[in-house]
Amino acid sequence: MAGLITLTTDFGLRDPFVGIMKGVILSINPEARLVDLTHQVESFDIVDGALALAQSYPYFPAGTIHVVVIDPGVGSERRPILVSTGDNHFVGPDNGVFSLVYERETSCQVRHITAERYFRQPISQTFHGRDIFAPVAAWLSKGLAPQAFGGLISNCLRVPVSRPERVSAGAIRGAVLRVDKFGNLITNFTPADLPPEGSFEFLVNRSRVTRLVASYAEGHEAEVFAIVGSTGFVEIAGRQASAAEVLGVWKGAEVILEIA
Amino acid sequence: MAGLITLTTDFGLRDPFVGIMKGVILSINPEARLVDLTHQVESFDIVDGALALAQSYPYFPAGTIHVVVIDPGVGSERRPILVSTGDNHFVGPDNGVFSLVYERETSCQVRHITAERYFRQPISQTFHGRDIFAPVAAWLSKGLAPQAFGGLISNCLRVPVSRPERVSAGAIRGAVLRVDKFGNLITNFTPADLPPEGSFEFLVNRSRVTRLVASYAEGHEAEVFAIVGSTGFVEIAGRQASAAEVLGVWKGAEVILEIA
Amino acid sequence: MAGLITLTTDFGLRDPFVGIMKGVILSINPEARLVDLTHQVESFDIVDGALALAQSYPYFPAGTIHVVVIDPGVGSERRPILVSTGDNHFVGPDNGVFSLVYERETSCQVRHITAERYFRQPISQTFHGRDIFAPVAAWLSKGLAPQAFGGLISNCLRVPVSRPERVSAGAIRGAVLRVDKFGNLITNFTPADLPPEGSFEFLVNRSRVTRLVASYAEGHEAEVFAIVGSTGFVEIAGRQASAAEVLGVWKGAEVILEIA
Repeated sequence: MAGLITLTTDFGLRDPFVGIMKGVILSINPEARLVDLTHQVESFDIVDGALALAQSYPYFPAGTIHVVVIDPGVGSERRPILVSTGDNHFVGPDNGVFSLVYERETSCQVRHITAERYFRQPISQTFHGRDIFAPVAAWLSKGLAPQAFGGLISNCLRVPVSRPERVSAGAIRGAVLRVDKFGNLITNFTPADLPPEGSFEFLVNRSRVTRLVASYAEGHEAEVFAIVGSTGFVEIAGRQASAAEVLGVWKGAEVILEIA
Repeated sequence: MAGLITLTTDFGLRDPFVGIMKGVILSINPEARLVDLTHQVESFDIVDGALALAQSYPYFPAGTIHVVVIDPGVGSERRPILVSTGDNHFVGPDNGVFSLVYERETSCQVRHITAERYFRQPISQTFHGRDIFAPVAAWLSKGLAPQAFGGLISNCLRVPVSRPERVSAGAIRGAVLRVDKFGNLITNFTPADLPPEGSFEFLVNRSRVTRLVASYAEGHEAEVFAIVGSTGFVEIAGRQASAAEVLGVWKGAEVILEIA
Repeated sequence: MAGLITLTTDFGLRDPFVGIMKGVILSINPEARLVDLTHQVESFDIVDGALALAQSYPYFPAGTIHVVVIDPGVGSERRPILVSTGDNHFVGPDNGVFSLVYERETSCQVRHITAERYFRQPISQTFHGRDIFAPVAAWLSKGLAPQAFGGLISNCLRVPVSRPERVSAGAIRGAVLRVDKFGNLITNFTPADLPPEGSFEFLVNRSRVTRLVASYAEGHEAEVFAIVGSTGFVEIAGRQASAAEVLGVWKGAEVILEIA
C-alpha cells in the first residue's frame, strides 16, 4: 500500500509534537496516510518502543513505512537509519529501537541516512522527528528508493530484550515486559516455555498462579490466571481486574516459572 | 459515504491495540477512512461505551460503519454481531453495547457474524477486535452486503441504562451517567423531566442546584448550575470549574429533582 | 493542499467531542483530511491554546484550515471568527486564541462568522465546535471563499502572552510558558535575550542553571541545563529527567536571567 506511514513515539499527546510531524509529512506528500501506533511509549525507553513496534507492524500491509521516535540521543553522534525488509520500511534513530525487527526479519537492509537534501532545514539538535525522520518517511512514501537516503551499514545497534533463563532443573526466571491498560502483566514467556504435559506454576511477588485459561472470560471472579495473550506472550491476568494491582507488581518484576 | 469506519474501545492509547486494528482494516481496504470516537471508555464498562457511541453516531454521514470493542466476554460464547439500520452499520460484541442504538433506531437488523472466511486466522480468544471486528468492518466497507456475514437474530442482548424514576409526588430520582473532562455531571434527566413552569431544584450530595442557565458563560463565578448539555441531557456544571470536584460526586451519584 | 483541517481543543480524549466534530466535518466534506494537533490544552486556557497553535501551524502546507476550540465563553456574546492569512485559515472563537497568529503574520483578514446557513441547526449554546466551527471549516475546505462567512472586523480580541522584562541592569525576568511531556520548562526567553558573549545564569526556584548546551544528550547525568528548544524558546531541561520535578516548578514559575 503506497503512502501509509505509522508513527510511534514517546512524545505523549499533550504537546503538539506529533501533529507537527504530520504537518511536515503532509507538506511533502499530501497523499500520505497516517496512523498512530502509540505516542505513550515510556519516555526514553527504547525497549518499550521496540516492543510496541514489534507487536504492531506485522498487521500492516506491505509497503508501510514505520517511523519510530524514541530518541534520547537526539543531537549526539547516534545515526539516523532506514531499515528496509522485503515488505516494509522503518525510519528512526540507530539506538536499538529496531532490535526486534532485525531479529524477526530474515532480510534487513540498514542504511545510514545521510542525504541532507531530504531533511528539513535548519536541522535542530533537539527534534529530529520533525527535521529528519518525518521528511525522510514522506519522501520515501512518494516512491524514492531507499538507496537515495544513504549507504548500507552493518554495525547497527541492538539492545537486549530480556528472555527467560533457566535457573534450576525445575525453574525458569522471566520478567514482566509491559503492563497493559487493563493491568495484564505481559511476561517474556511464550507458550513454548510451558511444559506440553504436567503441571506448572508461576510465582509472582510471592503469589502463585496455577491455571492457564484460554480466554479472560474463563477466569473466575477474583482469580489471577495465566493466558496466552494476543501478542504471543504469556500474560498474568485477572478477570475484569488488574493483575498488576492485585499482585502489587509492575514492569520489570520477576516471574518464576516452576515446572513440576 | 463509502469506507468511513469509526472506532470506540476501552483499550486506551498507551498500548498499540487500536493501531493494530487500523493495520488490519487497511490491509483489507486501503481506501478505508478511520476516525476515533474514544478509546477511553472505562475498562469493561458496557453502558459507558453505549453512551459514548449513542452520543456520537448521529453526527456521522450515512453509510458509516461504527466498530465498538468493549468486550469483557471475548473468547466466551457471546456472539459477534452486525447491526444494520437504514443508514449505518455497527460491528461489535452482543453484550448490550448497542442497546441505545436499538432503542433509537426504528429499524435494526441484527446479524450473528458467523462467516469465518472474513475473519483473521488464527482467531485468538483474547482480541476479537483485531481478528473479527476489524476485518468484518473492513470487508463491509468494501461493499459486501450485511447478509454475507451471517443470519438474522432477534434475541440480541440489551443492558439497562438508568432512567429517572418518580419517588414521590414532588421528587424524581436520577443519576450521574458520566462526568466529562471539564467535570460537568451528565445526568440522565432530559429537559422533558423539568416542569415547564414553576421552580425546581436538583439535590446532589446535599448541595442544592437551583438555576437553569442557557450557556456555561451565564453561570456566575463559583456557582454550580444546571444546563441542557450538547447531548440533550441535563448537566450539573460550573463555570470554568469542575462541578464533580465542587460537589464531591462522581459517576453513578444520585441526583434528586424536586419540583415545587 | 485542499481539504486539510487541523483540530486543537481542550476537550481531552475521554469524551467523544472530537470524534463528533470529525463526523460533522466529514458529513459536509467527505474528502476532508483531519489532523489532531492536541486536545489536551489546559481546560479554558486561551494562552495555552494560542501557544500550541503557534508552535504547530507553520509546519503545515499552504491552504490548511486550523480549527481551535478553547472556548470558555461559548454561548455568550463572543464572536465566532475566521482569520485568513495569505496561506492559511483559522476558525474559532474571538477570545484571543489567535493572538500569536495576528502577531506573526504580516497580513491577517479577520471576519465575524455570521452566515448561519453554514451552521448546524439547531445551534446549541454549549458546543459551537460541533455546530459552528466544524461546519464552517468543512464548507471552507470545499472551496467557499472566506467572504461567504461574514464581514471583516478590525477589533478582534488579543490576549497578552508574557514576555521577559528587564528588572535591573543585569537581570531579566521571564517565566515558564509550558512544561512539556518530558518535564522540560519552556520559558519565554529566546536566544536573542542571551548575551552573545560573556556568561549568564538562569535562576529558577533558587536553583542556578549555568550551562547552555546544543542537544539534550550533551547534558550530564543529573545536570539541569539550558537549551534552545525546537520551538525557538529557551528551555530549562534535564538529560532523561524532568527539570520540572528536579527544580520543583511548574507552568507560570518565574525565571530570572542574570547576565554577568
